[in-house]
Amino acid sequence: MAKAPLDIGRIDDVIHGRVRLGIMAYLTSTESAEFNELKAALDTTQGNLSIHLTKLEEAGYVEIVKSFLGRKPNTRVHLTKAGRKAFAQYLKVIAELLDKTTGGE
Amino acid sequence: MAKAPLDIGRIDDVIHGRVRLGIMAYLTSTESAEFNELKAALDTTQGNLSIHLTKLEEAGYVEIVKSFLGRKPNTRVHLTKAGRKAFAQYLKVIAELLDKTTGGE
Repeated sequence: MAKAPLDIGRIDDVIHGRVRLGIMAYLTSTESAEFNELKAALDTTQGNLSIHLTKLEEAGYVEIVKSFLGRKPNTRVHLTKAGRKAFAQYLKVIAELLDKTTGGE
Repeated sequence: MAKAPLDIGRIDDVIHGRVRLGIMAYLTSTESAEFNELKAALDTTQGNLSIHLTKLEEAGYVEIVKSFLGRKPNTRVHLTKAGRKAFAQYLKVIAELLDKTTGGE
């Protein structure tokens, strides 16, 4: 009677949040990005972006490097190897979920 | 320099939450389901499922019908036309996002 369970527990909540998903998606193709570049690309605020970057950093998915370009402080965000792996896994889980939904079975 | 923005604002937050995504995915293929069937399929608690169903109901994406089967109370959840449309749109947005990420450009 009941269909096979949808294993939503496999969705990585660190990545699934809308802003964090955007960050990971962006970094996957650029490898690294400046803070302001991410802020513009995701059309979000400085505070909001900071919060989500910290969460991704705590999970080990990104590395945040602060430096100076001349006198100007510069913040650059790098995707880590663990982050790349976690995002690939996330995409796999989502693809499977959506496939179960729209595809056969 | 900056890439084209990722339009994460188009992701429907009512659907995007992990449990709600699971509910919508399940209902898309079954059209309707009993409360206990959903609870088992998503491996969640009664309280948690209730909260998320209410949120989907408030958005007009599901309709919740309470009745009795003999003496036993029965709660059935139906996907609405608006819910089906919203989920199709959600899938489209996610597919585009993931395509931008893993595909070309």
